[in-house]
Amino acid sequence: MKLNKITVVGVGLIGGSFAKGVKQAGLVGQVVGFGHNEDNLKLAVELGVIDSYSTDISEAVGDSDLVMLGVPLGAMAPVLESMRPYLKQSAIISDVGSSKMSVIDAVREVFGELPVNFVAGHPIAGKEKSGVTAATADLFVDHRVILTPTDETADEAVQIVGDLWRALGANVVNMAPDYHDEVLAATSHLPHLLAFSLVELLNEHPELGNVFQYTAGGFRDFTRIASSDPVMWRDIAVNNSEAIAKWLKHYQQALTELIHLVEGKDADGLYHLFNEAKQARDLHIVNKDR
Amino acid sequence: MKLNKITVVGVGLIGGSFAKGVKQAGLVGQVVGFGHNEDNLKLAVELGVIDSYSTDISEAVGDSDLVMLGVPLGAMAPVLESMRPYLKQSAIISDVGSSKMSVIDAVREVFGELPVNFVAGHPIAGKEKSGVTAATADLFVDHRVILTPTDETADEAVQIVGDLWRALGANVVNMAPDYHDEVLAATSHLPHLLAFSLVELLNEHPELGNVFQYTAGGFRDFTRIASSDPVMWRDIAVNNSEAIAKWLKHYQQALTELIHLVEGKDADGLYHLFNEAKQARDLHIVNKDR
Repeated sequence: MKLNKITVVGVGLIGGSFAKGVKQAGLVGQVVGFGHNEDNLKLAVELGVIDSYSTDISEAVGDSDLVMLGVPLGAMAPVLESMRPYLKQSAIISDVGSSKMSVIDAVREVFGELPVNFVAGHPIAGKEKSGVTAATADLFVDHRVILTPTDETADEAVQIVGDLWRALGANVVNMAPDYHDEVLAATSHLPHLLAFSLVELLNEHPELGNVFQYTAGGFRDFTRIASSDPVMWRDIAVNNSEAIAKWLKHYQQALTELIHLVEGKDADGLYHLFNEAKQARDLHIVNKDR
Repeated sequence: MKLNKITVVGVGLIGGSFAKGVKQAGLVGQVVGFGHNEDNLKLAVELGVIDSYSTDISEAVGDSDLVMLGVPLGAMAPVLESMRPYLKQSAIISDVGSSKMSVIDAVREVFGELPVNFVAGHPIAGKEKSGVTAATADLFVDHRVILTPTDETADEAVQIVGDLWRALGANVVNMAPDYHDEVLAATSHLPHLLAFSLVELLNEHPELGNVFQYTAGGFRDFTRIASSDPVMWRDIAVNNSEAIAKWLKHYQQALTELIHLVEGKDADGLYHLFNEAKQARDLHIVNKDR
């Protein structure tokens, strides 16, 4: 299937990188951007991220073959509501939201059912930088993209969305939406919230003053994700709150055990914990050269 | 004062980088390495890290003008004990340990008092890689080195040790040893232990299986320090246990408040927390280009 027109709603880091990649790959007739900030959309055209834009939703999504939602989770429902009357019957709808159950619920709420051409998705890629100026066509190369089709979803729609991501170099996997939300709560949402919390704890702490001056590379790397977009992370925390709260509690339990080891100066127990963690990380996580 | 002979006890990442830097700066007559692993010491000579080595402590520290201890905290006391009979009266002793009260206590225990020429120190630099092969002469450039002299410490000894670090490009500051241990517990020991704990929590968790395959750059950076040397970190946790346990508890309290916000889907409270943290990090922590 040849797509004549793709609309990217929300031309930021992820939506913009998707748009730019699709455009550079020559996969579609035209890539149109939609958003409320016209300066941002003009910039996106100048940067070669999109072919054109509209700030009129009927014009932006009318006769579009595929609409990709790149907005924060909190904007999904209102955006879906505003575009619904103008979508072609055959239009595929997909998204890049970091939680999937909440997006699926929003789509079901707006459409009264899950449209067969709705394919929920989530590219596991990002930067602490946000916005269209950080968008690059190769952002998804060798990155996972998780699609979470439901029983209602048409196989052909899943295939088309998957093909687009594969054309951008991504490694596409399918997963149940609730399992996705658990996995991402544990591997992404939890560490982001831990990093925000550490920086905030140490920020002008009355006992210590400005201690950031005594930090080095380890702290810089550990807290890099605390420079992420607070609106995006507010929406993730609200929209995946159950799974995130659960994993925060699992983590608190682990810290309780750790405090016990530290207070007891349990050298063997501490070594065992640190060594297991180091072995697992060295085995599973590939460092980029610095 | 011209130093004719410096001995580095423990030629790993930090001790080796200090040795290599001092040697390349041409600041001393000779840099001698001491350790128990002769292969490592031979390698250090081949890599230009030290001029020569000995596995005999009397030979290694005899007639040395300055002995730098680069061993894990747990080895400080036995190493000090073994070298004590062979030190010149005028020899300066310093170290690079990550906690300072425990090293000062060990020195006092071994010598019966704090020698006037003992200068406790701590360079705030490191990598998740360890060992002499990771040692570089420029490791300390633009990094802080904290010296924690006590009332007993001779000013001249502090000056000489400080001059060596400054010659390696470091930014030397003096600090009370107990304040050092608090600051480092908060800014270094806490994040390291948090990273080890997260990796261990997710390592083959029965609810999720292997989730590391779904992680990306954020997780990689957040957990980089979980690849650090487990022996070194066991010793740090044991030797600075009081301050570390205190900051782990502060952090747990912060997480309790965070869980409350997440479970209550408190969008405003979450945004406020994330935004404050982002502002603080963007202001105080300079990202290296990736």
